[in-house]
Amino acid sequence: MRNYRKKILYVAYIASSIDGRIAEHSLDNLSWTSTEDWQFLQNSLKKFDVVIVGRNTYRVAKKNLDKRNAIVLTNKKLKSFGSVKFLKPEKHSIKRYLMNNQYKRVAILGGPRVYDFCLKNKMFDEIFVTIEPYIFTNGIPMFTGEKFKRYNFLLKSIKKLNKKGTLLLHYICK
Amino acid sequence: MRNYRKKILYVAYIASSIDGRIAEHSLDNLSWTSTEDWQFLQNSLKKFDVVIVGRNTYRVAKKNLDKRNAIVLTNKKLKSFGSVKFLKPEKHSIKRYLMNNQYKRVAILGGPRVYDFCLKNKMFDEIFVTIEPYIFTNGIPMFTGEKFKRYNFLLKSIKKLNKKGTLLLHYICK
Repeated sequence: MRNYRKKILYVAYIASSIDGRIAEHSLDNLSWTSTEDWQFLQNSLKKFDVVIVGRNTYRVAKKNLDKRNAIVLTNKKLKSFGSVKFLKPEKHSIKRYLMNNQYKRVAILGGPRVYDFCLKNKMFDEIFVTIEPYIFTNGIPMFTGEKFKRYNFLLKSIKKLNKKGTLLLHYICK
Repeated sequence: MRNYRKKILYVAYIASSIDGRIAEHSLDNLSWTSTEDWQFLQNSLKKFDVVIVGRNTYRVAKKNLDKRNAIVLTNKKLKSFGSVKFLKPEKHSIKRYLMNNQYKRVAILGGPRVYDFCLKNKMFDEIFVTIEPYIFTNGIPMFTGEKFKRYNFLLKSIKKLNKKGTLLLHYICK
């Protein structure tokens, strides 16, 4: 019998404006996203073992995240409690933690530095981008990488979530 | 007989990555955009009387733009020639120039400050956003407004331009 170890699946979820802004500021509570996107995200998360977020996202969504298995990436020394684990953003420590807990399905919920960290470290198999029909012209960009780099994706599906035209795009990392 | 003056139509064209980046730097020649997007843009431009661009976009696309009626927005004092007019970005001078030349259909081709200027000044009726299936994590954002502001749009249509999943989204300004 082969020693078969199932690969961990990483899926990122992002809600964005047409112009690629995901928040007004780092503690934005995203009140501008549609009900349909919120429902889609909540339904999707049922299929995941754990979520990864940054500290600002954690602070904004603490009430919801404390109920889940959550990894909060932060350079600050913070005491983990219950199902919430604070970890330094290092690939090995995260992988070890996921394996030790037998987590196989990981949802990445942002913000931009967490998305960037996961993409750079090959912890980014799929992405669901919800595009709300707004232009903000300023605010927090989807990714804040240190330099311009091209990551290729393949469009898997498109879905219109409501009448005003909130779009859900599903891409696979190539 | 009524003195009927047809409204000027402003349509913006933007090619973007999934994460809302439109170029690596301000003199990027956009070699990463798809042939299908290029063809769509060239076909679309046939229906316009004039294009509006910023100085960097003009420098990159000079060869193509010199053949067209073009307004280049710049604060520098530059001498207009042929069909290319250099104008300071002030709404009144642009409107006057459009009216004097009886231009009714205006295509806005960027970059981010030009898109922002037109959106802020209600010279932005429709927008065609082409989303290429890449994430860049850094680079020039679609808009560089001074502050976060919500502009509402209505999704009019979606079209998949090729197999890898370049998407063309058409929005109307609400």
